[in-house]
Amino acid sequence: MTAEIWDVIIVGAGLSGLSAAHLLKKRDAALKMLILEGKDRVGGRTVSIDIPAANGTDRWDFGGQWVGSTQTHILELIEELGLETYPQFNTGKKVHHMGGPCAKVRTYKTSIPALSPLVLLDLTQLIWKIDRLCATVCVRDPLMTPNSVELDSMTLHSYFDQNAWTKELKEEMGVASRSVFGIEPSQMSLLFFLMYSAAAGGVLQLLESSPGCAQESKIKGGTQQLSERLADRIGWKNVRLGSAVTAIWQDGEWARVKTATSSYLCRAVIVTCPPHLAAKIDYQPALPSQRQYLTQNMPVGHMIKFVITYQTAFWKEKGFSGEIVAGSSTDCPFCVTFDATNPSGSAALVGFIAGQGASQWTSKEVGERRKAVLSSLVKYLGPEAASFIHYEEKDWAKEDYSGGCPVNVMAPGLLTYYHPSLRKPCGRIRWAGTETATQWCGYMSGAVQAGQRAALEVLAELCPLTLTEEEQEAVLQSQCNEDPPLQTQPSRPAHLYARKSVIIAALMVTGALALAQRHDALQKVKLYVTNMFVAAKSTIF
Amino acid sequence: MTAEIWDVIIVGAGLSGLSAAHLLKKRDAALKMLILEGKDRVGGRTVSIDIPAANGTDRWDFGGQWVGSTQTHILELIEELGLETYPQFNTGKKVHHMGGPCAKVRTYKTSIPALSPLVLLDLTQLIWKIDRLCATVCVRDPLMTPNSVELDSMTLHSYFDQNAWTKELKEEMGVASRSVFGIEPSQMSLLFFLMYSAAAGGVLQLLESSPGCAQESKIKGGTQQLSERLADRIGWKNVRLGSAVTAIWQDGEWARVKTATSSYLCRAVIVTCPPHLAAKIDYQPALPSQRQYLTQNMPVGHMIKFVITYQTAFWKEKGFSGEIVAGSSTDCPFCVTFDATNPSGSAALVGFIAGQGASQWTSKEVGERRKAVLSSLVKYLGPEAASFIHYEEKDWAKEDYSGGCPVNVMAPGLLTYYHPSLRKPCGRIRWAGTETATQWCGYMSGAVQAGQRAALEVLAELCPLTLTEEEQEAVLQSQCNEDPPLQTQPSRPAHLYARKSVIIAALMVTGALALAQRHDALQKVKLYVTNMFVAAKSTIF
Repeated sequence: MTAEIWDVIIVGAGLSGLSAAHLLKKRDAALKMLILEGKDRVGGRTVSIDIPAANGTDRWDFGGQWVGSTQTHILELIEELGLETYPQFNTGKKVHHMGGPCAKVRTYKTSIPALSPLVLLDLTQLIWKIDRLCATVCVRDPLMTPNSVELDSMTLHSYFDQNAWTKELKEEMGVASRSVFGIEPSQMSLLFFLMYSAAAGGVLQLLESSPGCAQESKIKGGTQQLSERLADRIGWKNVRLGSAVTAIWQDGEWARVKTATSSYLCRAVIVTCPPHLAAKIDYQPALPSQRQYLTQNMPVGHMIKFVITYQTAFWKEKGFSGEIVAGSSTDCPFCVTFDATNPSGSAALVGFIAGQGASQWTSKEVGERRKAVLSSLVKYLGPEAASFIHYEEKDWAKEDYSGGCPVNVMAPGLLTYYHPSLRKPCGRIRWAGTETATQWCGYMSGAVQAGQRAALEVLAELCPLTLTEEEQEAVLQSQCNEDPPLQTQPSRPAHLYARKSVIIAALMVTGALALAQRHDALQKVKLYVTNMFVAAKSTIF
Repeated sequence: MTAEIWDVIIVGAGLSGLSAAHLLKKRDAALKMLILEGKDRVGGRTVSIDIPAANGTDRWDFGGQWVGSTQTHILELIEELGLETYPQFNTGKKVHHMGGPCAKVRTYKTSIPALSPLVLLDLTQLIWKIDRLCATVCVRDPLMTPNSVELDSMTLHSYFDQNAWTKELKEEMGVASRSVFGIEPSQMSLLFFLMYSAAAGGVLQLLESSPGCAQESKIKGGTQQLSERLADRIGWKNVRLGSAVTAIWQDGEWARVKTATSSYLCRAVIVTCPPHLAAKIDYQPALPSQRQYLTQNMPVGHMIKFVITYQTAFWKEKGFSGEIVAGSSTDCPFCVTFDATNPSGSAALVGFIAGQGASQWTSKEVGERRKAVLSSLVKYLGPEAASFIHYEEKDWAKEDYSGGCPVNVMAPGLLTYYHPSLRKPCGRIRWAGTETATQWCGYMSGAVQAGQRAALEVLAELCPLTLTEEEQEAVLQSQCNEDPPLQTQPSRPAHLYARKSVIIAALMVTGALALAQRHDALQKVKLYVTNMFVAAKSTIF
């Protein structure tokens, strides 16, 4: 078999691979690049699908969908590709259900969740503690974090167990872990969680939909357009779909990249697929054992994402925002929903069955899941929820060449023993994918950052003159983990700090006062603090 | 390509696969069986190699080597195959070094390690607590264990952190984890550790070389003979070496098993390779996501095993047993050594660089490791250690179609969410390998038990009349996890209980009294307890 010869082969046509190719092409149009993708589409963990809706059909994202205003890499790409964002709708009552199927369903309107005063105080102290720890984490080299071995030796569950005072908050944190990672707190290293939070600028940034946070805005027309437009620019002739890479063999002269039917030679390879899939490729010579141990043991999250379309956004008419948060102790299959009404006006809700919920629900029939989802929506939003147009879902664990979503996390011990191999090139192979990002790791923005970083590494090798001195320096640094702590975190806008202080202060006052008051006084205090918070918020933004 | 047709295909010619084939053949000689093995030898994680020794050359085990008197499955096989065992030599001074490179190197002669009274007391209470927990574990279905979710949500490290009082004991437990699993306590679920210990009859059984324990005896001529003799009986024409399975595709009628060059059809498949390798096979239709999550996230241990041959067993002449235990805080690369003198008289020591030690040492040159090993042996046993005949080592992480040793463990959360898929057949595929055993899981005996259990499952499907009613019942039970707790543990001989009580009582008395005494009195107490222990030991055995 005669092998085709290329300069660079990229494994995976998701955002990371296509961003790498895009940068390579911009710097050196003469570079011969080939992107090999197992799926029959581009986009990786982003996919936008047309489904029946109020005005015929409309398109929704069934993978990554949100961007935030501190996610500079994805925002620049959105602008460059001529796409637009619009804010996540979050006005109105939010529903909150924890503490068992029969516990009271609470609603609230501010950013302060409807928790009892004690749990609010508990939340405040816990977030404060986590943020203090986050501030000590070096994202680029987590082993430089003070006390890193200890932090990496315990699960996030153990940390919550030791540092959250109330059972309710522990349940709340389970929901947070499931919603963000698709993974239970028991399956993740505390240090990994801190690193991931620090890469996003803090733990609240992961959880909220307000400015600077992960769920702030969406892309008009869907996120898969990013990959499609990138492929347009790179040239579709350079993208081969249905071409899963099975082997990468290297010798002194070439890297040979194989699929089931073809074989290609090249001078550099960028592997962008998630670690558990990268682990399945046959590498010759074998990768260093540290690298093997790392990719063989990074659990990928499990999420089933669903969209339900309606004739009208009845929840808005009733004063609800569409946001529901439900704990694992309730009968509710999903952990969180949001309003998903399109800019065109097609009404919809989006939700996630994640972590242990996904584990339990994945083997059931779609009809059973739909029934359980609708039954919970009726319970939380009213009987109108039953009259839907269409229910569509995607179980990412069953998606070929994904096998899980949104991100691979690290179990305890992995950072301590194997982290240096996360981004370290192996011969002609460079590593990208959002898991290797240092800013918004795990998000679309991280995928772009990682792809661009890997592209710079390849350019530094193949055509170093296309790099600025600054970029050459960055390539060197990214390969030797020499950055001092804290420099590696994305800069946080000052208003985020101010906002966080206000939230924490408000929570603290509510909790502390409420604990010292009787029930009737409590209502007044809550009202007072809520008003104070709303006032502060409108002043700042 | 025309595919060969077989009744049963077994993936892996280690002890588990060959034991399965052996049982299948004994029950139905007409069954057409094929064993496909990636390596160029049988034996899997057991391999016996000839190296230069005092009397020319002699053979040592570089993989699994020990058996214990409660390991019924392997003992029956040893007898059936006409092999013999001999006891692990453990008479004389044992060396114990913890607490940093400059800490005092201690020696001791009894089963009670040379620890300070406080650490001894600490060890006693910790072992007592662990054994109490072990007694509550249901090996076949760990989720039936009281408080299972909590026990599975923390790492073994966190448990030691919370339950060991002294820093020295925590270091000691690190050595234990490394020696048994090749993994650090931070990488393992507490519940998994308890299940593993319970499957061996208790935690001391994992650690010791005394009767009933894991390091009790060795096999004359080496353990690989077991696999070679099994292959003799099954017929070498049914074993294809250098034939790594890359895919298993199933339809209504057949399972199609593929290697790089061939394709086979069969009615049943038994996959025996370790979970992280089973995860690399391409299954169509895809396996249930629970199964995928499980095998993608079971870390395999990392051990570099070495044997050093000498003209004479100088350590015996100097009153040493050859057993050295060294903590990770010392400069010593290995965590443990034992006497490895062959029955023929060829003097040797065997040792293990494991866990974080293996992680650190794996990328260095063999010469550097040898130098460090020898330097430590000289420090602990005297200058004679420098005059060796030959140093040979095996880094199991670098062994093709192993990628680690001795066993895959479970990170936190895996048992809770995915354990039911460990042994559950997937269509025509049954799962074996020592990781699926319920008695001495992780050991050679477990490999045999698991292989035989999988063979019975296949027979129950293909030729049920060859099974006794009892066996048919066992097959049903093994697939539905219905056993009540505690019935699933191997029976422990009464003398083991008695012995453990004596050890614990002795430790308790030493520790408690010593804490209340001055230093001079302490020596007397230690002498008294040691004598009491030796007396008790000789009475019992």
